[in-house]
Amino acid sequence: MKLEFIQNLVKPADSKIVLLVLDGLGGLPSGPQGRTELEAANTPNLDELARRGICGLHVPVGPGITPGSGPGHLGLFGYDPTEYKVGRGVLSALGVEFDLQHGDVAARGNFCTVDDEGLVTDRRAGRISTEKNEELCELLREIEVEGAEIHIETVKEHRMLFVLRGEGLSDEINDTDPQETGKKPEEPVPATEAAQKTSRLVKEFLNQAAEKLADHAPANMLLLRGFAQRPGWPTFQEAFGLRSAAIASYPMYRGVAKLLGMDTLEGPASIEEKAAVAREHWDDYDFFFIHKKSVDSRGEDGDFEAKVRAIEEADAQLQALLDLEPDVVIVTGDHSTPAQLAYHSWHPVPVLLWSEQCRTDGVETFGERDCLRGGLGARLPAVDLMPLALANALRLDKFGA
Amino acid sequence: MKLEFIQNLVKPADSKIVLLVLDGLGGLPSGPQGRTELEAANTPNLDELARRGICGLHVPVGPGITPGSGPGHLGLFGYDPTEYKVGRGVLSALGVEFDLQHGDVAARGNFCTVDDEGLVTDRRAGRISTEKNEELCELLREIEVEGAEIHIETVKEHRMLFVLRGEGLSDEINDTDPQETGKKPEEPVPATEAAQKTSRLVKEFLNQAAEKLADHAPANMLLLRGFAQRPGWPTFQEAFGLRSAAIASYPMYRGVAKLLGMDTLEGPASIEEKAAVAREHWDDYDFFFIHKKSVDSRGEDGDFEAKVRAIEEADAQLQALLDLEPDVVIVTGDHSTPAQLAYHSWHPVPVLLWSEQCRTDGVETFGERDCLRGGLGARLPAVDLMPLALANALRLDKFGA
Repeated sequence: MKLEFIQNLVKPADSKIVLLVLDGLGGLPSGPQGRTELEAANTPNLDELARRGICGLHVPVGPGITPGSGPGHLGLFGYDPTEYKVGRGVLSALGVEFDLQHGDVAARGNFCTVDDEGLVTDRRAGRISTEKNEELCELLREIEVEGAEIHIETVKEHRMLFVLRGEGLSDEINDTDPQETGKKPEEPVPATEAAQKTSRLVKEFLNQAAEKLADHAPANMLLLRGFAQRPGWPTFQEAFGLRSAAIASYPMYRGVAKLLGMDTLEGPASIEEKAAVAREHWDDYDFFFIHKKSVDSRGEDGDFEAKVRAIEEADAQLQALLDLEPDVVIVTGDHSTPAQLAYHSWHPVPVLLWSEQCRTDGVETFGERDCLRGGLGARLPAVDLMPLALANALRLDKFGA
Repeated sequence: MKLEFIQNLVKPADSKIVLLVLDGLGGLPSGPQGRTELEAANTPNLDELARRGICGLHVPVGPGITPGSGPGHLGLFGYDPTEYKVGRGVLSALGVEFDLQHGDVAARGNFCTVDDEGLVTDRRAGRISTEKNEELCELLREIEVEGAEIHIETVKEHRMLFVLRGEGLSDEINDTDPQETGKKPEEPVPATEAAQKTSRLVKEFLNQAAEKLADHAPANMLLLRGFAQRPGWPTFQEAFGLRSAAIASYPMYRGVAKLLGMDTLEGPASIEEKAAVAREHWDDYDFFFIHKKSVDSRGEDGDFEAKVRAIEEADAQLQALLDLEPDVVIVTGDHSTPAQLAYHSWHPVPVLLWSEQCRTDGVETFGERDCLRGGLGARLPAVDLMPLALANALRLDKFGA
């Protein structure tokens, strides 16, 4: 369903929705007795909620598609990630929780090495340390161009964020990253008339940057790519009529939430502490997005047992969220991160939804293979979760007489 | 699949399809032993058909979307209700089985109360009785405007139907209902050049109506909204090559069927009597839509046990339909109406399909949770049922060489 279709049916209600995202929840049956991480974990509380709720597996973006964190969360929030695309520059800004304004142009930057003729010899400047990066960013902040502010942020190792802020900017300019060594950096060519100013300013910035960095080999030049502006999407509140709060510790997830106009509250580490933050703000919001990162991190470490323990930790603290007495609870992940692959994957993600008016489905335990037989189906598009959450919160009008 | 895609594959055959719609069939597990209405009902005949057929659950409009009767049935008939939208005026006309012609403009009318300054003080005129409504409609029928016929029908309480019939009319005019009290009714402003005539005629009608109703406070004015014309869709026969008959007692369902060009036969109350009507006309049609309302009505009453009995009644009379020896039988609902909610809901609807060439799936009883494991899947879009019916009736050509 299109966002606009749902938007037209939204009606007010007093109900509260809690979405608990266990990042990277889904796994592969590479554990003892051929179990997945979730199946191997001892999760009496999630199992009990699964028994009282409706279960299934969701497909974050599309069949076979491995989502990044941005698209993974956009899908859960009801924004089809194949339609609501976030440029790389904007994703970089989200990743360091930079307060990107409408009209800003952001780009992902790489410190790189160029030789005497200006040909790129290492696109990542030998992966300089983050400390060195910070030092160089400090230098770059001295640069001024006429007609716009420049913002520079360190990301990690050779990666940085470049933001141009001012009137009449456009993101329709070329990457300067030539994508291979032995070539000169590209010119930031404008694709449209409207992008000429931006192109000129970026060129000027890069010229000055080249001078500033000249003595700092291997990081003696900068490549920019993925120029992008903050998209003019309907906010989460406009789309779904929900006053919403994100309780997440990591910048990327706080950033995605902010992009949709959610408020970001403090994000302590544990679910119990996050539940306490939610309780403090319970009357101010209708929708609480609670994010737990460690399940994904342990999956990315390739550590099956540690991922199992991270899931068990979430299970042990689930009650703190249920004690808030929300009307709708959803527990799922934004994608799978099987320890077997030690990385994000395309596999569908277990999901459970509980409300007083969900139709229970006989699923007794929360696990990949049990969820296959659940009422949400084996391959529910992730974007369908928000309409289901709204319906269960009695926040959608009937369609047609 | 798009209607046009199916339409291009349709081939003639002698086979007959019976679609039995138990309105509002789906329920919630709020009964004894946590059963739904259908699960609690004793339905040996439906269970036997489920064993010999293929089962599943269909999603009428989309995930989380609660359908009105119009969209619910359009989906079952293979017309995607998010694409084939029926205006409110047309739905009102269907609801009283008004014979809406192509070119007619229909609107939903409310008798309302206005004060001395013409400000609306009650948008529903204190919900006058249907008898009073009929009396006032009789008065309004005296009104004449130059260039079009006016048709007036009582719906119920304060609600009525207004239809303008003539050449060169358009539905692109504003609602006159201001949607809140303390305001004057809006002018019926034309949105396009083509709607100017309609706007002028509606204005003239409303001026005369105001005079006629002046002494009938609280019903001393009329508000019109949802101006709409009969859509120019392909008929059911054009789309699917089926000569079709609707056997339904309630005007709304007869109306939707007529909108698709189906013939409407007499609609006695019971399934057995409806089967007798079908038998009488067996050779004249290829597709019989049989509608049973009481399952939905008992659900809307919030009466779990009565809904169970209505389902058992349908089960007991099923044999009368099977005795016609149709080639394809489908039994389902247009939406769920759980007694727990006492209203239409978004929950998927159990469906079974039987033909000599269906692929049985091991489902032994016809119920929400048994159907989850059926061959039609846990979340089949309702619009996919008609192509499956046609395929099982051997009425679809191979696609591609």
